[in-house]
Parts: sequence; C-alpha cells; structure tokens
Amino acid sequence: MKVYKYPTREEWNSLLERPSLDRQSLQATINTIFEEVEKKGDMALKAFTLKFDDIWLDEIQVSQSEIIEGSDMLDLDLKQAIDQAYDNILAFHKSQIISEEKVETMKGVTCWRKSLPIENVGLYIPGGSAPLFSSLLMLGIPAMLAGCKNILVCTPPQKNGQVHDALLYTAKKLGITKMYKIGGGQAIAAMALGTSTINRVDKIYGPGNQYVTEAKQFATRRGIAIDMPAGPSELLVLADSSANPSFIASDLLSQAEHGPDSQVILATDNLELAENTLNEVYTQLKALPRKDMAEQALANSKVILLSQMDECIALSNQYAPEHLIVASENAEQYIDRITSAGSVFLGNYSCESAGDYCSGTNHTLPTNGYARSHSGVSMDSFYKKVTFQKITKEGMRNLGPTIERLAEAENLFAHKNAASIRLKSLGL
Amino acid sequence: MKVYKYPTREEWNSLLERPSLDRQSLQATINTIFEEVEKKGDMALKAFTLKFDDIWLDEIQVSQSEIIEGSDMLDLDLKQAIDQAYDNILAFHKSQIISEEKVETMKGVTCWRKSLPIENVGLYIPGGSAPLFSSLLMLGIPAMLAGCKNILVCTPPQKNGQVHDALLYTAKKLGITKMYKIGGGQAIAAMALGTSTINRVDKIYGPGNQYVTEAKQFATRRGIAIDMPAGPSELLVLADSSANPSFIASDLLSQAEHGPDSQVILATDNLELAENTLNEVYTQLKALPRKDMAEQALANSKVILLSQMDECIALSNQYAPEHLIVASENAEQYIDRITSAGSVFLGNYSCESAGDYCSGTNHTLPTNGYARSHSGVSMDSFYKKVTFQKITKEGMRNLGPTIERLAEAENLFAHKNAASIRLKSLGL
Repeated sequence: MKVYKYPTREEWNSLLERPSLDRQSLQATINTIFEEVEKKGDMALKAFTLKFDDIWLDEIQVSQSEIIEGSDMLDLDLKQAIDQAYDNILAFHKSQIISEEKVETMKGVTCWRKSLPIENVGLYIPGGSAPLFSSLLMLGIPAMLAGCKNILVCTPPQKNGQVHDALLYTAKKLGITKMYKIGGGQAIAAMALGTSTINRVDKIYGPGNQYVTEAKQFATRRGIAIDMPAGPSELLVLADSSANPSFIASDLLSQAEHGPDSQVILATDNLELAENTLNEVYTQLKALPRKDMAEQALANSKVILLSQMDECIALSNQYAPEHLIVASENAEQYIDRITSAGSVFLGNYSCESAGDYCSGTNHTLPTNGYARSHSGVSMDSFYKKVTFQKITKEGMRNLGPTIERLAEAENLFAHKNAASIRLKSLGL
Repeated sequence: MKVYKYPTREEWNSLLERPSLDRQSLQATINTIFEEVEKKGDMALKAFTLKFDDIWLDEIQVSQSEIIEGSDMLDLDLKQAIDQAYDNILAFHKSQIISEEKVETMKGVTCWRKSLPIENVGLYIPGGSAPLFSSLLMLGIPAMLAGCKNILVCTPPQKNGQVHDALLYTAKKLGITKMYKIGGGQAIAAMALGTSTINRVDKIYGPGNQYVTEAKQFATRRGIAIDMPAGPSELLVLADSSANPSFIASDLLSQAEHGPDSQVILATDNLELAENTLNEVYTQLKALPRKDMAEQALANSKVILLSQMDECIALSNQYAPEHLIVASENAEQYIDRITSAGSVFLGNYSCESAGDYCSGTNHTLPTNGYARSHSGVSMDSFYKKVTFQKITKEGMRNLGPTIERLAEAENLFAHKNAASIRLKSLGL
C-alpha cells in the first residue's frame, strides 16, 4: 500500500482516480456472441459453452431432479448458514415494501403510485473460483418478494457439467425453477435476445467479469434494462483514533482478495493508526490462500493521511466508494456528513463481509463513482412505480381551467381541447 | 387512423411494433460536439449556439436581473396557473418522501436505508415551438424537494437571445439561480463534461429531440447518469362501451399534436365506439392549429378492435404504453389487471393533459416499451438510497459464525477472517 501524507485538495483528484477500463477489445467478442445467439439460439449457447467452459451440454436447463438431489447433498451446517442469511436478507428487503397513500391534490383530483413487479427478470450468477450463492440470495430474494412472474437464473456449469449444490439449495429455497447452465457473455445474450429454451427478459441483474459487463451494455442497446453499470469492487475505510488496526487490516484484505483490480483506500487523521494498520495488513496477508491476488490489489491501494476527520469524510464523499467502513467507536457522529457511498458500515464490529453475506443489506452496489448517482439493488430494482390518477367531474371543474391556460401557453391546443371538451360537457 | 378488427395474438407483435430509431447518423454530430466542448469549453458552447440557434451570446448564464425582470413581466393569469400546477406537483411528490424504519435483522445487527440527494443535477428544458415550463416544474420540484445541492438548468435561447418569461418565472419560484442559455447536444455535453461556466453534474434529466437523446447516451459513457432512455411520446386508450367518443378523440389528438412520430392507439371491444371515435377525431382535427403535424401522427395510429376488454388489457400490457387512459365509467375494475404502463389515467374525466401539466403526477415517463422495466421520474430519481448497518459486539457474536461459514464456502478466507478476528477479540 502506498502512503500519502497530507495531500492538498488539488492532489485529491489524481489520488482518487480509478483505473479506466479498456472495453474496446471486448466489443468484437461480445458482438460475435450476440450475432451467433441471435442467429442460432440454443445451438450457439451450446457451442460457446463447449468453447469457453469445455463442456458439451445435452440439456441447457437444470432439471428439477438435479435441483432436488443437489440440494439434499449440501452440508447441514452450510444449509443452516444459508438459511440464516436468507432470513436476514428477507427481513431487511421486506421492510422496503411500503405502500404510499393516495393524495388528493385538489378536490376530485386523486393521484397515487403503485409498485408493479417487473415481469421477466434474469439473474446472472458468476461461476469461477467459487459458487456465488450469496449473489443468488441478494438478487433472488427481492425478485421473489416483488412478485416477478418469471425469474430466470443463468450460471456457468462447473467442470463436471453440474451446478454447485449450494446454488441448487439456494434456488430451491427461493422457488426458482428456471435455471440454466450458461455463463459469460452468451448467458447475457440469451436473456437479452431469447432462445427456444431461455425466454427474453425485461431486465438483467448480477455481477460478472468484464465480458459479462460489456454484454450487459450490449443488452441495454436492445432495450433491456440492467441493474447498474459495473466496475471493480471498492472499499474505503474512514478510521479515527478509536479504530482497531487489526480489524481494519482484515477488512482491507477482504476487499483486496476479490481480485487484482480491487480498489482499497484507508483515510485517517491518525498517523499511528495508519502505521499499525499497515503492519497488520502485511502480517495477516501471509496466512491468506489468495495471497498473490491480494498482493496485486494492495500494490494499487492507498493509505491517505489527512489533518482531520472532516477532511477524510470530504475525501470519501468525493470518491463515492462502493463500500464505506466508518471504523470508530463513535461512528454515528459522522453519518450526517456522508453524502455519497453505496453501503456504509458503522463501528468497529461492522465488517464489510457481514454485508457481503448475511446482515440483511444487499451486496449489489454501485462502483466506479456511480454511488454519486445510483443506489444499490433493493426492492426498487424489481418494481416499476406506476402513477395513477382519477379525476372526477368535480375534479375537472377545479383543474380544467388550469390545464387550458397552461396548454395554451405551450401552444398545445389539442391538449387544451381535451380539458375544454370535458368542461363544456359539464356546462362550463 | 388504421382500423384492425379482431387481430389474432400472433398478429399483435407486428401491430405493436414501434418505429426503430436510426441513431447512427446522429453519432458523428454528437461526437464532434463532445470533442469541441471538451477542448474549448465555453467558447465551443458559444460557437454552437451561433451555429444552431443563430445567436451570439456574450453571457451564457441567465443573470439574476433577467430572472427577476422576466418573472415580473409574465401575465398574472399564467402565473396563477403555474402556481396551481406547482402546488399540485409539490403535494404529490412530497407524499413520496417516506423514511424507512431501522430493522434489527438479528439481535445487535441493525440495517436501514437513508435517501441522500444526488448533489449535482442538470435539467434540460427544450425550446422549440413553445417554452416548456411544465418540464421545468416536473424536474425542478422533485430536485428541490430532494435537496440537491446544485441544480443547473440548460435551455436554448429564444430568437431574441432571451429565455421565455414563463421559464424565468418558474425558475424563480423554484429558487433556481444557475440557468444557462444553451440548448441541444452542446447543453448535454456541457453538463456531462463541465466548462468554466457550467459545472459537471452527476445526473442529467429532461426531454429533447433526437440530438439531445443521443447526447444523453454519450453522457452515460462518461459515467453520468440519465433519467431514462427516451423515444417518441405514446398514448394507448382502453375504452369500453361506457366511454365518451368525443373525449377519447380529444385525447388521441392531444397525443398526436406532439409530433409526426407520436404513437397513438385505441383498443376497445366496442365497434360502435370505435366508429364514433374515428368520426370525432376527424371532426376535431379540422379546428387544430397543429393539424398537419397531428395528421401525420394519425397516419401511423391504430384503432384495434378486440372481442373483450380482457384482450384489450392484455394488448396494452404487451405494448407497455407511456400513457394509458382507461376510458370507462368503471375504470377501477381494470386496475388490477394492468401490469405495465408509465402513467395511468382512470375514467372519462382523467385526460392525459391533466397529468402533462398540473394534476400532480410527473410527466417524464418511460416510452418505447421501457415501461416494462422503468418508472417515470419521481423523488426516487433525485436520491441515492444508501444502506447503513451497525453491528454491535453482541451482533457480531450472533452473526459472526454465519459469516465465517458462508465465506468459507465461497473460498474467500480474508472475508472469513474479518469475522474471525472480531470473534476472537470477544473471546470466541
């Protein structure tokens, strides 16, 4: 980790710069994938799975018996841990379901909003080094709670051609029946375009590598919504003198182990804490199985020392981190000064991995500065909020003349007439 | 309007097809604009304003005295109509501000969401044939209510180099001081890139022509959020035998007068109503100042006769219209069957122009089928919902073992260690 002592405000911009992603090279690949899937459907999916995953699939869809048998095989203690995570995530997301009151803006003019589920949703769950059942929980629970009619899951097959038991158990728990052994850009293309096995969806969710990310951008050009634009995962720790250096070190490392492009920043007003944390980072690093990956991420990581906590918070706001840990015994005192972050962890015992798995909050969060303008995944992500209005005869009497005057001022006389003709029918 | 009697479900797809937009030809223009604005800043804005609006601006920003003097000049009755619209839109949007409860998902594990305003927002208000003060109300009111710190407005100057008094009055009412006489793609480029006069924003909102729409897409590639992707405006009217043909005709025409590419559909189970409405449309058309424009839109418009209202609703859901009028004395009976629409107008007296101007709902709505997955502009559009969590020592005792087990199953041992090191410190 590089240490920056008391940088000036002018230096913040370059300090907080994120690596720019070169996506040009991916575009040709993704373009070919979309073209092939559009032309050849399921056959293209099978061909790409053979090419990229080295597996020939006779069936793309995971069968019901695979789901049931796989679920049964899972270790009991892992089932219980998944159950606990499920309960917590469910409780927090349920609390976001709020029905709004109808508002009578004028006598006889009533307006309200209704949350309608997005009907067809596609959840992408990456494979790779581990089965990301936590992502399936984070996307599947709000999709199920919202009442989405068709919930599709795509995930690459393991080397044995199967889906991991932990994912099957989670799918069974969520009542998901449409699960497909397709990964990468071809999975996104299938959900965006539709094939005879995989239906076209309205919105695609989920993390993934740079191919998946680029394919989601392609999907948006076909009119498919996506959860959010994505970049490498990030953590900023704000720490004051009451923070615990070994706790912070463990958090920085848990972010760093995600991959060599992970972004990790410690901002503090306390030199001693910074030094102790650095020592702890290198001590704890030695014991990690993903040591090499974490080491690469640490090479790009920063410790930024500033003269006071207010400066540290301003720096964090400017960066708008995906994850923000406020490492302090009195973390609450800083809350009102935070203006941009994806998810905030308050106090010395709120580690990021709690939110990654099982405290209840969603772990699908805006990266790359998008926390300035985007929220993480929540119930909102699976609804459209549709406005309704009911205007009675009395309402038209009250509102009609205003419609007429405003429409006239915008030179829209048919708009005016829609009010006039109704007013006339009421003898006005 | 073309009449389609009892088309089969197979025929619906082609009936409901929207015109595909050719954006390729715009890209070169917008690319040049972005490059020039990036290189030359304000000077490029002035040059483009001279080129496209035929005006040389000495000052880009509207001065405080222009705002105050212009406001004063506005007709009193128009001021009063704007005030009424303001009150209604304010009341409805205020009702969307709901603070969520904190949730203790396990003893000692507390999660909540907080709505934080997007700090820097840019509102684009088109010029053209009329001053769209209604768009400024629809975007400015929620921006102000949310507490956005910097609210910028860009709008093209009129031929006299000034901004229309109705816009100045609305800006003054909203407390907006940062208003710029810049329109088109150059306005979007300025807000996306920043110049010495116009600050870079986090999110851009507002309607516009195809250049503005394309420029907003360019802005997203620079990491700037936008309100929603846009297409031509749309109205679908669902009408049963209790509907009023002349009212419906006035609504279809008010949509048609927006422009030749407007999408207008009437779906009904009643042949007589369809015929009477068609007659009314052509009668009312004759009296319209924008007759030519409306006529072009009507040429592409459709009357679709189906055997029952259930079929009409299914058709509407498949189309997912921006505006949906349910023209019926018993409109409420259909509500629960509506699955996709931008904004719904219930009953014979709820004309679309009420929602366009002043009933209280927002008129910035998803077009082009995006109502399947997107909401219209609301308070949500001006907030990020940030999750917070506080885990106490007791919370870590309760949740820690679950974090450990789940992180282990995903092979993320630094994630596990962040819990273990805290549990160990608690003697566990």
